[in-house]
Amino acid sequence: MNWNTHTIALGGTRYPYFYGHECMGRIIDSIAGYDADRFIVVTDDNVLALHGESLLPRLGEHAPVQVLSLPAGDGMKALPNLAAHLEQAIASGATRRSVVIAFGGGVPGNLAGVVAALLFRGVRLVHIPTTTVAAMDSVISLKQAINSGSGKNHIGTYHTPEAVYLDVALLRTLEGKQLRSGLCEATKNCLAIRPQSISDLRRVLADGDLASPSTLLWLLEESLEAKISVTERDRYEQKAGLILEYGHTVGHAVEICDQRLRGAEGISHGEAVMFGMLAAARISAAVGGLTQDDVSMHDELAYALGAPVTVPDGLSIADVVNAVRLDNKRGYLPVSAGEAAMVVLDELGKPMGSRDLPLVPVPMDLVEETVAGLRVDRHGLSLQH
Amino acid sequence: MNWNTHTIALGGTRYPYFYGHECMGRIIDSIAGYDADRFIVVTDDNVLALHGESLLPRLGEHAPVQVLSLPAGDGMKALPNLAAHLEQAIASGATRRSVVIAFGGGVPGNLAGVVAALLFRGVRLVHIPTTTVAAMDSVISLKQAINSGSGKNHIGTYHTPEAVYLDVALLRTLEGKQLRSGLCEATKNCLAIRPQSISDLRRVLADGDLASPSTLLWLLEESLEAKISVTERDRYEQKAGLILEYGHTVGHAVEICDQRLRGAEGISHGEAVMFGMLAAARISAAVGGLTQDDVSMHDELAYALGAPVTVPDGLSIADVVNAVRLDNKRGYLPVSAGEAAMVVLDELGKPMGSRDLPLVPVPMDLVEETVAGLRVDRHGLSLQH
Repeated sequence: MNWNTHTIALGGTRYPYFYGHECMGRIIDSIAGYDADRFIVVTDDNVLALHGESLLPRLGEHAPVQVLSLPAGDGMKALPNLAAHLEQAIASGATRRSVVIAFGGGVPGNLAGVVAALLFRGVRLVHIPTTTVAAMDSVISLKQAINSGSGKNHIGTYHTPEAVYLDVALLRTLEGKQLRSGLCEATKNCLAIRPQSISDLRRVLADGDLASPSTLLWLLEESLEAKISVTERDRYEQKAGLILEYGHTVGHAVEICDQRLRGAEGISHGEAVMFGMLAAARISAAVGGLTQDDVSMHDELAYALGAPVTVPDGLSIADVVNAVRLDNKRGYLPVSAGEAAMVVLDELGKPMGSRDLPLVPVPMDLVEETVAGLRVDRHGLSLQH
Repeated sequence: MNWNTHTIALGGTRYPYFYGHECMGRIIDSIAGYDADRFIVVTDDNVLALHGESLLPRLGEHAPVQVLSLPAGDGMKALPNLAAHLEQAIASGATRRSVVIAFGGGVPGNLAGVVAALLFRGVRLVHIPTTTVAAMDSVISLKQAINSGSGKNHIGTYHTPEAVYLDVALLRTLEGKQLRSGLCEATKNCLAIRPQSISDLRRVLADGDLASPSTLLWLLEESLEAKISVTERDRYEQKAGLILEYGHTVGHAVEICDQRLRGAEGISHGEAVMFGMLAAARISAAVGGLTQDDVSMHDELAYALGAPVTVPDGLSIADVVNAVRLDNKRGYLPVSAGEAAMVVLDELGKPMGSRDLPLVPVPMDLVEETVAGLRVDRHGLSLQH
C-alpha cells in the first residue's frame, strides 16, 4: 500500500491531500485521530450502496455515525435539503466537536461543505471523494456552494477542509461515464492551463483503459498540479483562479437544463464542461484568440472522450441561453445585459483579459449563435472513440 | 447634526461605525457611494411601517431596492425564511455587486447577515440598526446566525459588515420595553466587563428618561467600549469574547421557550438576558464566586429595569432546562451530559475559568434548582421602578 501526500495551498490556507491505493484502513485511522464526538456523513444513495460498508462500520468504532443520504444527482444541492440536513444533525446532538465527512462525488461534497460551514458557524470538514471529478477538482477548493432555483452554486460560503483522503480503489467502480467526466476536467486543465500535458492526455485517451491505476494516478497528479499552480495565490478563486471556469459558462447552463429534464441520468458535469469548452473555443476564435487548429484540438479531445458535441436532445437553445444569463460569474466583471462574462482563450494555456482577471465580456448574441450552430467535423480527427 | 465614527476592530478585521442624530440623509449619501447594482433591504413589518419612508424612497434614487420583510419576532430567523429570501433575491436579479441592508433590530440583522454571507458566497452587508440591542450589541460582531428547530443561533457563518450606520433619532420611537432591552445588555456589560460604569448606569436608571439623546449616547458609547475591549483580540468570539455571553445560557433558553409560546409579544432579548444573569449570579455565588451583595446588585438592576424576576408564566422549568441542554456553547468546553458550559463570575468584571476561555462546567442539577427557586427579595433594593 502506497500513501502519498500533497499540500493544497489556496492563498494563505493549507490542507493536506492524502492518497493511496486500497488504503481505507489508514484513512479511518487518521480520521479517528480527530477526537470527534460524532461523524456526520453526507453522501448519496449510490455511494452509500457501493462503498458504505468500506467506511461506516469501522468509523462507528470511534464515535457515533449519522448518515445523511439523498438520491444521487445535482438536485440534491438544494436549499430544502440543506435545511433538512442541518436540522437533522442538530436534533441528533451534533456539537462543535462533530466532524462532517463528505463521502462521494462533487455533489454530496458541495452539500456537505455548506452543512459543515453553517453548523455552529463552522465545524470540521473531511472529504473522501469517490469520483474523479470530486477527487481532482471539487475537493481542491474552499468554495462550498449549492444551487438556487435559478442557477448553479449561487448560494454558499468559504470553508477550509481539514483534509482530503482518497483511496483510488474507490474510483475503479465508477462507470465509464464518470471516469470520462473526470478526464473532461483534466482536459480542461490541459487546454486552459497546461498545454504541455496535452501529449500525455492524448496517450492516455488512445490507451483506452481509463480505470487503470496508472491512468488514475496520472489524472490525479496532473489535476493537482494544474489547480495548485493557479490557486496558490488566489484563495477565494475570484480572480486568477477563474481560469478554472473555462468551459463552465455554457457548460453549467447545459448541465442545469439537462438536469431539470433528466435528473441524475443526464449529462455529467465533466461532459457538460467539455461541451462548454467547444463553445468557448469557437467564441475564442471568433474574437481573434484561438486558431482553427486549436478549435480542432478541442473537437478531437471531445470526440475521443465521447462527450456530446451538440446541445443534448430535448433542450432548447433559448433555455440554455437564459441559463447563461443567470451564470454566477455575473458581478466579477461588470457587463451589460446583452453580454456574458466568460473565460476566453487567447491561445492554449493563455486567457484573454489578464492573468489576474481572466474574464472578458462576450455578446450574448455570439453565445447564442455559437451554441445553436455548434457542429464538429469528424473528418481529420486523429483520435477516435 | 453631529456625525461621529468609531472603528470596530474584531481581531484583524475592522469596519466603521458611523452614528449621529437625525442623520438619515448623510447615511443614504454614504451608501449611495457603494456603486451597488441593487439594494436588498432585509427588515421586519414593524420597522418597515415605522421607518421605511425615511430610507426607501431616497435609497431608490441610487439603485433598485428590493424589500424582504417578514412579521417581527425571533421566529423570522428560521431556515425556511432564509431560503425564501435567498431565492427571491436571486430570482429578482441580485449579483455580487448588490448590497444587503440589515434594517431593524437584531433579528432582521441576523437574518440579513446570513443572507449576505451566502448570496454568491458573500456580498456586501450594511447595518442600519433601529433598536438599542442591535445598535449596541448585535451589529458589533462578525457572527451571522439563525435558529434551528432545536435552539438559537445554531446555524450561520462569519461575515464582515462594510459599515454600521446609526441614526439615534430612530431609537426614540422605541417602546419602553425595547429601550429597556438595550439597557439590559448594557447592564450585562457593566456587570461582566466594566463594573466601573455601574454608578453611571444607576444614575441613568434613576433618572428615568431612557429615550433622551444623552442617555442613548451614553448607552451607545458604553456598549461600544465594552464590546471593543474584549473583541479586539478575538475575531471569532470563540474565546475571550465569550464573556459577552454572560446571562445568555439561561437567558437564551427562556427566550426561545417564551418565543414559542408568545411570539413577538413575549419577553425581549435583553430582558431574557437580564433574567439569565439573575440565575448566573446565583450560580456564581453557589460555586464560590460572587458575594451575596453582588447578587443583590443584580437583583436591584433587574428590578429597576422592570425585567422579569421569575420564569415567565406558562413556561415549564423542564422546557427551559432542556433548552439549556441544547445551548450552542456546547463544544467550546467539553462537558458531560449532566453539565452546561456557562459564563460564571468570580467577582464583578471577572469571569471564572480564564480570560482566554471564560466558561466553566456547571451541573445541570444546579441550573435547574436555581431557575426553579429564583426569588428576588425587594426589601433593601435601593432602586425602584
